[in-house]
Amino acid sequence: MLIRNASEMPAAPVTMAGAEQVGMRLLLGRADGAPTFAMRHFTVEPGGHTPRHQHNYEHGVYVVQGSGTVEIGGESRAIRAGDSLFVQPNALHQFRADRGEGLQFLCMVPTTFDCGQPTPGA
Amino acid sequence: MLIRNASEMPAAPVTMAGAEQVGMRLLLGRADGAPTFAMRHFTVEPGGHTPRHQHNYEHGVYVVQGSGTVEIGGESRAIRAGDSLFVQPNALHQFRADRGEGLQFLCMVPTTFDCGQPTPGA
Repeated sequence: MLIRNASEMPAAPVTMAGAEQVGMRLLLGRADGAPTFAMRHFTVEPGGHTPRHQHNYEHGVYVVQGSGTVEIGGESRAIRAGDSLFVQPNALHQFRADRGEGLQFLCMVPTTFDCGQPTPGA
Repeated sequence: MLIRNASEMPAAPVTMAGAEQVGMRLLLGRADGAPTFAMRHFTVEPGGHTPRHQHNYEHGVYVVQGSGTVEIGGESRAIRAGDSLFVQPNALHQFRADRGEGLQFLCMVPTTFDCGQPTPGA
């Protein structure tokens, strides 16, 4: 049975341009046989942020711990533990740990996009 | 911007046969324009359980709070907050709040299965 706990997994540093102090743990992905969507756990250290970017697949996000700011499509909102949010395909977006503490969130993505191309980090 | 917090949403009682003391909150679904997967938040009161059933689409699950037992394909394991798990398509499965406290978990599903049929509760 596949059970993983992020607290027991090492984080992979996110080296994508524009990412600062971001780590990722792949909770469920293509390599596990996930047919439709992947589940990733992200940590952003205080002051860090994810890349401000866009892509033609969506994110489903759930904030696990901490607080910060999300920017989607030019609009910024405070986020906190328990918030869920939707990043539509092609929306410019960024997650920032800019409220004095770290931010942990789950980020779900489809396992493939563009008619079968593997989604990065899935 | 679509941000929801489960703590601020009413739970819909799950009336499916075999469910006992289960509530669901749809955090992200087809009606929101989610193209690939849906995010649902489930609460199971102490002593309650989800249906012991199977279906030909998968679950990606993240335990938000509490503890309990998951049974997948005849194997049972204790689960606790922070655990993520994968229920493969067609695996018989059940979530039970049988450890003296309630259980809260996210359960992700594809928005459709069987070549476009809407997934229940998505």
